[in-house]
Amino acid sequence: MRILGIDPGFGRTGYAVIETGQSLKAIEYGCIETLPHTPNGSRFRDIFEAVTDVIERHRPDVAAIEQLFFNRNVTTAFTASEARGVVVLAAELASIQQFSYTPLQVKMAVVGYGRADKKQVQEMVRVLLKLPTLPKPDDAADALAIAITHAHSYRMAGRVDGGGRTVRGEVQR
Amino acid sequence: MRILGIDPGFGRTGYAVIETGQSLKAIEYGCIETLPHTPNGSRFRDIFEAVTDVIERHRPDVAAIEQLFFNRNVTTAFTASEARGVVVLAAELASIQQFSYTPLQVKMAVVGYGRADKKQVQEMVRVLLKLPTLPKPDDAADALAIAITHAHSYRMAGRVDGGGRTVRGEVQR
Repeated sequence: MRILGIDPGFGRTGYAVIETGQSLKAIEYGCIETLPHTPNGSRFRDIFEAVTDVIERHRPDVAAIEQLFFNRNVTTAFTASEARGVVVLAAELASIQQFSYTPLQVKMAVVGYGRADKKQVQEMVRVLLKLPTLPKPDDAADALAIAITHAHSYRMAGRVDGGGRTVRGEVQR
Repeated sequence: MRILGIDPGFGRTGYAVIETGQSLKAIEYGCIETLPHTPNGSRFRDIFEAVTDVIERHRPDVAAIEQLFFNRNVTTAFTASEARGVVVLAAELASIQQFSYTPLQVKMAVVGYGRADKKQVQEMVRVLLKLPTLPKPDDAADALAIAITHAHSYRMAGRVDGGGRTVRGEVQR
């Protein structure tokens, strides 16, 4: 199974494609940056086209998209949510089913500890994907972590016959 | 000039097309409703396709899109912002320039009073567009008010040579 992981943002959207099998494998990861001092619409278009392009090149089976949470900066939360809507739409128009995971679910699935810090998550991502160095930039590492979260929770859900308390994300509702 | 006004939301997105000239004229207005208990992606797709359809049928020159503000319900604010991103993208992909207005700017432009209530705004919308009754539903009335806001601030900006203190909305940045 190929999983597209996305950490949506207005200025920077991390993306990653991984493949499941005997072990997990990173196919591609990176960060979509949009130009500051550019109208929002054209920045959303850039995000939409870049995500659509990744989907067309790798044909993932599902998309795992990070659920945002409100931080101090309200303006950032607004534009990040708008960017997230654009990402979900890109997956939907490409007929890719979307799953949603909270930052807590990601930490639980990747590190097994809800208070894990960024560094611990990145180190586990590196180990699980057998990368020679820590994945960079942070947004791409986050996207890899979200894709791994889906892979783990999917497997777990299988093991427990879809029941039990798992970290399985929810289909976007 | 034809103006598309949009009051974005997840469950309900109000839209309106008005025409400027000797007086303002409503061309079409209504509400795009999305189905509850349906994955978010398909609801965003519905909004995207409905907005695109209105644009194709009426070819507005600009889009005036209401700026959301956070209310008590955080979940609603998230999904409404995501829907807004989808609306902005739809306008952008149709090469329609977008302008953004806050609820305060709308009240100032339509009623001339920042603390005007919903009823006063709707009554002014009815008078300005010479409608026989109050526009319904509320979301459509809001969309008409946003379109009128752009018409008024555009005219004002012209009168004062683009300077002065006007309620002119900002291009999406």
